[in-house]
Amino acid sequence: MSKGLVTAEIIEELKKIVGEKYVYTDKDKLDPYSHDEVTDPHYMKEAQVVVLPATTEEVSKVVKLCYDNDIVMVPRAAGTGLAAGAVAIFGGVIISIERMNKIVEIDKANMVVVAEPGITTAALQDAVNKEGLFYAGDPCSGDSCFIGGNVATNAGGNRAVKYGVTRDQVMGIEVVTPSGEVVQLGGKFRKNATGYMLMHLYIGSEGTLGIITKVYLKLVALPKYEMDLLAVFDNLDAAIALTPKVMNAGITPVCVEFMDNASIKQVEVFLNEKLQHSDVGNYIIIQIAGDSEDVLDDQCMIIDELARENGALDVLVADKDKIWKSRKAYLEADRQRSLVFSMEDIVVPMTEIPGAVQQISRLAEKYDVAMHCAGHCGDGNVHIDILKDDRTQEEWEEMLPKIQKEIYALVYSLGGRLSGEHGIGFKRAQLMKEYMDPVEMELMRSVKKALDPKNIMNPGKVVDVNDEIPVQ
Amino acid sequence: MSKGLVTAEIIEELKKIVGEKYVYTDKDKLDPYSHDEVTDPHYMKEAQVVVLPATTEEVSKVVKLCYDNDIVMVPRAAGTGLAAGAVAIFGGVIISIERMNKIVEIDKANMVVVAEPGITTAALQDAVNKEGLFYAGDPCSGDSCFIGGNVATNAGGNRAVKYGVTRDQVMGIEVVTPSGEVVQLGGKFRKNATGYMLMHLYIGSEGTLGIITKVYLKLVALPKYEMDLLAVFDNLDAAIALTPKVMNAGITPVCVEFMDNASIKQVEVFLNEKLQHSDVGNYIIIQIAGDSEDVLDDQCMIIDELARENGALDVLVADKDKIWKSRKAYLEADRQRSLVFSMEDIVVPMTEIPGAVQQISRLAEKYDVAMHCAGHCGDGNVHIDILKDDRTQEEWEEMLPKIQKEIYALVYSLGGRLSGEHGIGFKRAQLMKEYMDPVEMELMRSVKKALDPKNIMNPGKVVDVNDEIPVQ
Repeated sequence: MSKGLVTAEIIEELKKIVGEKYVYTDKDKLDPYSHDEVTDPHYMKEAQVVVLPATTEEVSKVVKLCYDNDIVMVPRAAGTGLAAGAVAIFGGVIISIERMNKIVEIDKANMVVVAEPGITTAALQDAVNKEGLFYAGDPCSGDSCFIGGNVATNAGGNRAVKYGVTRDQVMGIEVVTPSGEVVQLGGKFRKNATGYMLMHLYIGSEGTLGIITKVYLKLVALPKYEMDLLAVFDNLDAAIALTPKVMNAGITPVCVEFMDNASIKQVEVFLNEKLQHSDVGNYIIIQIAGDSEDVLDDQCMIIDELARENGALDVLVADKDKIWKSRKAYLEADRQRSLVFSMEDIVVPMTEIPGAVQQISRLAEKYDVAMHCAGHCGDGNVHIDILKDDRTQEEWEEMLPKIQKEIYALVYSLGGRLSGEHGIGFKRAQLMKEYMDPVEMELMRSVKKALDPKNIMNPGKVVDVNDEIPVQ
Repeated sequence: MSKGLVTAEIIEELKKIVGEKYVYTDKDKLDPYSHDEVTDPHYMKEAQVVVLPATTEEVSKVVKLCYDNDIVMVPRAAGTGLAAGAVAIFGGVIISIERMNKIVEIDKANMVVVAEPGITTAALQDAVNKEGLFYAGDPCSGDSCFIGGNVATNAGGNRAVKYGVTRDQVMGIEVVTPSGEVVQLGGKFRKNATGYMLMHLYIGSEGTLGIITKVYLKLVALPKYEMDLLAVFDNLDAAIALTPKVMNAGITPVCVEFMDNASIKQVEVFLNEKLQHSDVGNYIIIQIAGDSEDVLDDQCMIIDELARENGALDVLVADKDKIWKSRKAYLEADRQRSLVFSMEDIVVPMTEIPGAVQQISRLAEKYDVAMHCAGHCGDGNVHIDILKDDRTQEEWEEMLPKIQKEIYALVYSLGGRLSGEHGIGFKRAQLMKEYMDPVEMELMRSVKKALDPKNIMNPGKVVDVNDEIPVQ
C-alpha cells in the first residue's frame, strides 16, 4: 500500500491547524523524537515532522488531514516507552500530545479524575493525593511518562499485585479514530454492559488504532499505613518462591519485586553507595498497605517467618526511599554500563519464575553475556537486561536474536507471553509473528484492518497487517 | 444475507459429533431453551435444534459445520440472562455448554481456577472456598447461572465496588471463533502487554463473536471478617446520597445496595414475612470486609454516623441471610406480581442516582405504572422494574417504549449508559441504535464484521450489522 508523502503543502496545513510554532521540522527540534528509551540505534529514526496539537479538536483536524492524504501518523506521549512504539520508523507525522497536559477535573464524590493525556503520571498522582485520594497506577517511569501513554500501552508497574495495571484504573477514554472522528468510550460510571468494550481494545493498543485525547481514571481511598520489607536471599530461586507463599498466607501485598545479585551489584556501582548484602544477596521487596497498623504488623511477622523458612539471610523493614531508589535505578544502572542493551519483558505464571530465571542464567553462561534480572515477581513479570557491553554492533545483532529465540521458546513453553508491560511496538513486532498463536495473530490483524483500514495509524507496530511493511 | 437452513442432514451431522441423545429436536426438550429470564413473550422463540457438546473439540466441530453451511448459531449458558441474548430469535442452532461443567484445576500457588464454562458460579465459589480461596464475582443469580455466561456477558453483581465485575476476575479464556478455530487468550499470568487484548473484547460480547469454552479466573484470599449493615431512610435521595460519603470517608465497601420502599413492600408480599421499617423505609445495605475486626468496627461506627447525619431512621448490623434474601428476592417478587415486566438496567455516575430515581418516580406517576427501583448504588447501576400488571399486551407494548424513551434520554443526559450489567442481547439492540453515539456504534459494527464476517454467531444481538435482520 503506497502512502502519501508529507509535502510542503501538508506542513502548511498542519501549521494552520496548530499554529506555526507547534510544527517542528528543524533537525534539532526533531532529534528528541527520533527515539524512545530503547538505546539501540536499530530502533531510532528521525521524524520528518512533529506536530503538537493543544486540543482534541486540533488532534481531530490533524488526523483528518493525514487520513485524507494517506499519511502515516505516529501518536506519541512522553517517549519513555521501551518498544520503539512512538518512533516514526516508517516515516509520516508524529502527533505529540505533550501540550495537552491539564487535569480537567477531580470529581471527589464519584472518585474519578478526568485528565488530558499529556500530564505526567506523578503530577496526576500528586494532584489527587492533595485531595486525599489515590491513583494506583505506578509505572517505574512515573516522574516522566504521560498518563495517555500509560493508557495507550497499558503500563504495568509496581502496584499491580494489589491494584492491577493501568487498564484496571481506566473508567473511560476519549479517542480520535484514524479517520479523525472523536468518540468517548466509558465515562464516570463503574459498570458497563452496553455493547463491546472497545475501551479495553484501545487500552494497550499502542497508538495503532487511534489517539487517546482524554482519560477518566478511578480513584481510591489513600491507604492509611504502608510498610516496605526487604528480604535478602543468597539463593535466587528460594527468594522468588517466597511470593506464592505470601499470597497463599492470605496477604495481598501492594507489590512483590525482586532484583538478582548482578542487578544489585550494578545498581551499587551506578548509585555509588553500598547496598545491604550486595556480596551475595538477591532482593525481594514487599510493600504492604492498609488501614490498620496492627494488621500490617501481623502481616510483617508472617512474611518474616515465611522468608526465614525459605532460607532468607535477613528480613528487615526497609528504608522506603533507599530501597525504591535502588529498585528504580535498575534500568539506568545497566544503561550506564552498556548504553546499548535489550530489555526483555517476559511474563509467566508466578510459580514458573524460578525455573525461567534458572534457564536465563544458563543462557548468560552459554553466550558469555551479562543478563541482569529484576522485576515484578508478584505478577510473573520479569525484566531481563541483556547487555551489549564491548561487543561490536555486528556481533550484538548476530547474538541477540539467538538469545531472544531461546528466551521466548522457553517463555511460551511455560505458558507465558512476550511482554508483560512494555508492549510490542516495533521492537517486538517480528517476535509476535514468530511466537504468537497464528489464530490469535489473525484475529488481531482483522481488528487492525477493521479499525484502521488505510493502515496509517502507527503502522508496522504491534500487528503487521502486511508481510511487507510500507517504508517511505 | 440469506442464511442456511437446519436440514435433516445437518441434524444427522450434529448427532455424529455430539451423540444422538445430545441433539434436541423434540418440542418438550426445546421448550426450556425458548426463553431466558425475560418473561415478555415478545422475547421468546422456540429453537429448531439444541446441541449439547461435551468438549471444546466438539464445540469446534459443531461450529465448523454451521460455518460451512452458513447456519446461525446461538451460544447458550444457563439461560438466566435478562436481555434475550441466548434465545434463538433468528433461528439456527442453539449451542448449549451445560455439559461442560467441570473445574479443570484449582491452582493454589498461582491463585487461579481453571474451569469449563458450564459450572454454576456458586459451585465454583464453593469449590475454591474449600481451598481457603475466594472468587469475587457474584451475580445475584449465582446459584443457577454458569461461569461461562458470566464471562460472556461480563456479569456484574454485588461485590463490584470492592472487587470489580466479572471482567476484573478473568485472567484468560479459551474461545471457539465463528469459523470453529480454537484460541486461548490470556492464561495463568497477571500482566499482559502482548498485542491487542482480544480477551477483553470477547468478555461481554454476549456470544456474538465466539463461544467461550474455558475460563481462567483470578482468586484472592478469603477475607477474614465480614459485616452487613442496614441503614433505613424515609427519604430515598438521602439514602442513596450516603454512598459517595462512605467512599469519601476512606471506606471501600464490598457493596452498597439499595431498595426503594415499593420494592421492599413487594418483597414483603413475596416472602410473606415482615421486613423492618417496611412502612416508609428505603434500604441501603452496606457490606464491609477485611482482615481486622477493629478496622471493621471503626468503619461500622463511621458509616453509622454518616447515615444518621444523612437522616437515617435506623442503622443496624443486619442479619446477613435475611437481608440478602430480601435483596435477592427483588426480581422474583416483581415477577410474582406481574409475570410480564421490563427490567431496565441503567448505569449513571454514582452522584446522579438520586436525580435519576426522582425522575423515575415522576415517570411512574405520569404513566400510572408501578416502577420499582433497586440495585447497586455503589457503582451507579440501578435496576428499574416496570410492571405490566393487568394491562393488555397491546397497551403494554404501546406504553413501554414511551417510558423507555424517557428513561434513556435521561440516562444519556446524565452521562450514563443503557446497561450496567444485564447487557444488550436482543432486548436492547434497538435501543442501542437509538441512543449510542453513532461513531461508537459504527466501530462496534466494524469489529463484528471483522470477527464474524458471515454474521452467523448470534446475529441480531448486541450489534446489528444490517439494518434488516435476517429471519429464517
